[in-house]
Amino acid sequence: MRYKKVSGGITTPKGFRAACCAAGIKYRNRTDMAMIFSDVPCAAAGTFTTNKVKAAPVLWDMDVIYKHKTAQAVVVNAGIANAATGKTGLDICGKTADFAAQALGIPASSVLLGSTGVIGPNLPIDRITAGIADMAKNLSGTLEAGTAASRAIMTTDTVNKEFAVEFSLPDPEGSGTVTVRMGGMSKGSGMIHPNMCTMLGYITTDCLIDQALLQKAVSAAVADTFNMITVDGDTSTNDTLLALANGQAGNRPVTAEDESYQIFCEALFSICHDLAVKMAGDGEGATHLLEMRVYNADTRENARILAKSVVGSSLVKAMVFGKDANCGRILCALGYAGPDFDPAKIQVYLHGEKDTLCFYRDGCVQTFDEDLALAILSETAVRFSCNMNMGTAEATAWGCDLTYDYVKINGDYRT
Amino acid sequence: MRYKKVSGGITTPKGFRAACCAAGIKYRNRTDMAMIFSDVPCAAAGTFTTNKVKAAPVLWDMDVIYKHKTAQAVVVNAGIANAATGKTGLDICGKTADFAAQALGIPASSVLLGSTGVIGPNLPIDRITAGIADMAKNLSGTLEAGTAASRAIMTTDTVNKEFAVEFSLPDPEGSGTVTVRMGGMSKGSGMIHPNMCTMLGYITTDCLIDQALLQKAVSAAVADTFNMITVDGDTSTNDTLLALANGQAGNRPVTAEDESYQIFCEALFSICHDLAVKMAGDGEGATHLLEMRVYNADTRENARILAKSVVGSSLVKAMVFGKDANCGRILCALGYAGPDFDPAKIQVYLHGEKDTLCFYRDGCVQTFDEDLALAILSETAVRFSCNMNMGTAEATAWGCDLTYDYVKINGDYRT
Repeated sequence: MRYKKVSGGITTPKGFRAACCAAGIKYRNRTDMAMIFSDVPCAAAGTFTTNKVKAAPVLWDMDVIYKHKTAQAVVVNAGIANAATGKTGLDICGKTADFAAQALGIPASSVLLGSTGVIGPNLPIDRITAGIADMAKNLSGTLEAGTAASRAIMTTDTVNKEFAVEFSLPDPEGSGTVTVRMGGMSKGSGMIHPNMCTMLGYITTDCLIDQALLQKAVSAAVADTFNMITVDGDTSTNDTLLALANGQAGNRPVTAEDESYQIFCEALFSICHDLAVKMAGDGEGATHLLEMRVYNADTRENARILAKSVVGSSLVKAMVFGKDANCGRILCALGYAGPDFDPAKIQVYLHGEKDTLCFYRDGCVQTFDEDLALAILSETAVRFSCNMNMGTAEATAWGCDLTYDYVKINGDYRT
Repeated sequence: MRYKKVSGGITTPKGFRAACCAAGIKYRNRTDMAMIFSDVPCAAAGTFTTNKVKAAPVLWDMDVIYKHKTAQAVVVNAGIANAATGKTGLDICGKTADFAAQALGIPASSVLLGSTGVIGPNLPIDRITAGIADMAKNLSGTLEAGTAASRAIMTTDTVNKEFAVEFSLPDPEGSGTVTVRMGGMSKGSGMIHPNMCTMLGYITTDCLIDQALLQKAVSAAVADTFNMITVDGDTSTNDTLLALANGQAGNRPVTAEDESYQIFCEALFSICHDLAVKMAGDGEGATHLLEMRVYNADTRENARILAKSVVGSSLVKAMVFGKDANCGRILCALGYAGPDFDPAKIQVYLHGEKDTLCFYRDGCVQTFDEDLALAILSETAVRFSCNMNMGTAEATAWGCDLTYDYVKINGDYRT
């Protein structure tokens, strides 16, 4: 590891400040808006939902990222998704960005937006602008401000999600190194089956890096982290991951795919990985994190498809909730995933903290120690793996169990 | 309609008999094996799971159907799926067919097999053969015998599923008509997301029809019925639909795609449709049948994909359970299904017995009467539709709601 974990999240890197407020968009007695601000313009990259029905803030952000490639602020609200709101929704995005731009003294095209919550209703623009006015006056670079922002964007999340790392890169003269920092926060609990990236995730870094390389690094990290988690198979209308790099660390600019870029990618992967696994484990109603590693597969894409199929199976998820080692369901989920394989040649394992149990090989479900299986399935993180015996590719996917509370939360989400 | 519904199921057509018994495979105090027998050899057709992990009886049946194209008996058990059982599982199939062949006085290659239940364990061959010996002595052509067989193949099903129709076809001389009958039974409640056909379904007819035409008719009917239902997105290792035509009605042979074939197809569709909808409505833990019709789509395949995405969405299913008209979730499920469309041009409706409610159009979720929506969502069958405004293709998919009982049933299936 060429990076190390440090405290905080989005305000850990130099030159980033955050704020949040209780704007009363939907919730009472809690914060529900957050703002991220960089003291200087940033190279900006992003990945967005592949859902054909894209929320208005997603369309707004795609325009900013693809056309301008720079940004300086992000305004996020929880409670209402501003999705399926037609032209009115887009107008509200325009007004929100204009108001934030004026309050912060930057161009409206430098303001990124994010919304999460119920699909359909319009955002109350008066409360949004009042919230922005409040936040613009209270921006702070403390770690606490970043943590508070990560709480303000939660919906059915039960814990806030943030992570930060630091690493060393050469200074401009090449005579020494400087410390570069990177932090992130995300939210997501239901409608989680990202296909491009996940619900809402924000990454900040003070690294000086070329925008095209930043985008490339973000897309690569997302493919093996946020895109490998699933809570319920539903790809949201609002999925957005944004990364802002403001260059305040004073490193020699990262402009090629050299060693500095590799270190940057490792650090970025660690943040995306941490946030993604936290999101999977905090899936709506979840009592277990579910992990499936597929290795010795023929191709990486097939390994990804197979791993995701297992963590997405309702029957596997319900079995983990019930601590019932009905392991044939894992085999079934591998079988309908799509990629071709020979069922007689694979081995499937259940991994505990200390013990590993092989429950399928040579074409047969094995007789196994039911007490040991129950003990392993009682751990908070339940890990499965499958040796495909076909090649050298591998992938890991994360999900959570299916519980009564998932049904309860989603049978009555709007009230 | 050129057919009419009549009483019964698989024993309604001439020359078919059935039996069942309590073999004690897994359950106590209930029947768990069934046998279908035709007095004469039948043209036999079938469709099977596309899961790469195919249960032993599926492999056995594929061999019989593809190689021999004829059959005279079917032996089915509930409780154990005989899947992921390797060579032992195949050996048990061979022994089961040999034993049944001897008991019935037919070749082993005329015996079709079916199993449903837990994946992994081996079938207790002694109980299977004892059951066959019992059933071979008690075959009966009564409607009651067919109904009893449809009960014996149930697992977590709460109701047995059978349906029968009759129709007229020309007699061999062409001077008059004869009555042709067709009946079917099926089971399926969990691990239901057929991709080729569904859990276990059996159709009998006394029609005299060419085997290739029978197979063609079955494949076409399955595509718009069994393949359009989903309970939990999990495609089973055991899905099998078999059709047996014994020619006892005395009709002029159906050997071309003429009017007789069309009538046959309509009757077959009605049986597959009835059984498939019953299976969707009896999904594990279900309290509502869920129907989604997509019309004016660009292609039939896209209409199918869109319709299935909606009835398969965990969030739509949980919303129907909770009678919460959070209709943006339907839009979301259409959006991530895959086919391209313009969200601004579609309309989405909720249909009650008497009322219809448009809850999305012109790119926006509409304001609607919440009391009316609650009343419609309280009906047993909840129907949605979407006008794509792109072409003339349409498809309908069926599913069920996601309930606490689904989680309960599948958190502890083996005990």
